[in-house]
Amino acid sequence: MKTKIEFTKKLVYKAKDYILDQIENNEIKVDTKSSYNDFVTSVDKGVENFLVNAITNEFNNQTFLTEEAMVENKVGDESWIIDPIDGTTNFVYNQQYFAISIAHYVDGKPAFGIVYDVMADELYLGIHGEGAYINGKKLETLDQSLDFPDVIVSSSYSIFNDFDFTPEELNSNIIAHRYIGSAAIEICHVAHGRLHVYQARRLNLYDIAAAVIILDEVSGKWRFGDHYNSVNVGHESSIFYAGTNDNIFNFMDKNYLK
Amino acid sequence: MKTKIEFTKKLVYKAKDYILDQIENNEIKVDTKSSYNDFVTSVDKGVENFLVNAITNEFNNQTFLTEEAMVENKVGDESWIIDPIDGTTNFVYNQQYFAISIAHYVDGKPAFGIVYDVMADELYLGIHGEGAYINGKKLETLDQSLDFPDVIVSSSYSIFNDFDFTPEELNSNIIAHRYIGSAAIEICHVAHGRLHVYQARRLNLYDIAAAVIILDEVSGKWRFGDHYNSVNVGHESSIFYAGTNDNIFNFMDKNYLK
Repeated sequence: MKTKIEFTKKLVYKAKDYILDQIENNEIKVDTKSSYNDFVTSVDKGVENFLVNAITNEFNNQTFLTEEAMVENKVGDESWIIDPIDGTTNFVYNQQYFAISIAHYVDGKPAFGIVYDVMADELYLGIHGEGAYINGKKLETLDQSLDFPDVIVSSSYSIFNDFDFTPEELNSNIIAHRYIGSAAIEICHVAHGRLHVYQARRLNLYDIAAAVIILDEVSGKWRFGDHYNSVNVGHESSIFYAGTNDNIFNFMDKNYLK
Repeated sequence: MKTKIEFTKKLVYKAKDYILDQIENNEIKVDTKSSYNDFVTSVDKGVENFLVNAITNEFNNQTFLTEEAMVENKVGDESWIIDPIDGTTNFVYNQQYFAISIAHYVDGKPAFGIVYDVMADELYLGIHGEGAYINGKKLETLDQSLDFPDVIVSSSYSIFNDFDFTPEELNSNIIAHRYIGSAAIEICHVAHGRLHVYQARRLNLYDIAAAVIILDEVSGKWRFGDHYNSVNVGHESSIFYAGTNDNIFNFMDKNYLK
């Protein structure tokens, strides 16, 4: 597995060079997908192709689940779940706050996950059962006694559609609200202690598959649809939320409008 | 004025070195000010001292308005309005998404403003009447025909306390919501076309004084308390919002619960 991890780290750094080159040369072509605010770019597709081809050439019998589905999507013994650019809207408008997300699952179980915040040059790595790292430095287990109001909550305004609190109630019970707009980065920020709640309405497996391996390694709590601290490959797009520990996660869970 | 601008640019890059050194050596001491979620750090104070001393040593008869008020705060013919670290909560928890903000006013009128997003290494400069720049590259005048729903709105949840729309109404009328948590950076992002609305409930002059000089140079619209596209030195902490153009600004203004 160590070989695969080192190989994948090198891959994402190479993908960064490609992305910077495309930005530099104004080569980004933007299309919409399901609606006017759902973007895909030539760079999402270029990164996905690059990653899938490199993995296929290096290892035999690998299977893929990818956002852009430019390769046959199926689950096998050794699967890669890839979001080539998580935070495409940020990529289009801001050219920062986006990440490459790659998870590797073996026999249906998490093996390792990499989330690379390209412009911040922060590479998060979680190895199942062995720990999580940022740029090679081990992340500590999250503070299991932290509680409201000493928390920073990340969510779009849509949090008020899914939870039973008003903007005033939520605001008066937290340090601050933030929302960067990349699930992969923000789940890693929970794992890093930079945020304490992250919530989004409709995420797909490829958005979260790598980051939750990192979060698990530091004892974070999360929910994806009806599953707690576990993914379900069959999932449709579902609600996702995560918290630093039981206290914080349970406050969210208690107020969730199921 | 060119001398002062070049001098100030060099200063903020030196301040960056100090900040990185303090992070590297874990030298950040955190206190709270008015409440449990209002932070100040030894680095805010260190940066302010460094900037004020350097400016005082270089130029005669300069006056200052600064966030930490470590120097006598008064307004003279040549005034500097300084927020040494805008986004202190981000600095404490995230070590990114914070900025140094320096505005220079001569005879009560804006001369130039610098906002330096330290970790992204993005230096925004606005020179009154001459244009705005990011890292030396000129920013274009903002798209005067852009309108809802093709906008990205940045605001904390508190937007619903000040404007007459529900979370659902706002969400269904925009591309996306974001909230980074640094007024100086986010106002510059409006100037850069990365965001199209920025709003915050209670800002102080030092939070916005530099960024609005940048925004003015690209024809952005903004409001600070009861003043439109102008600052008032006597201001208490006030509501602030900005939009890309008249269309977008007026939608906000129309829905503002005065």
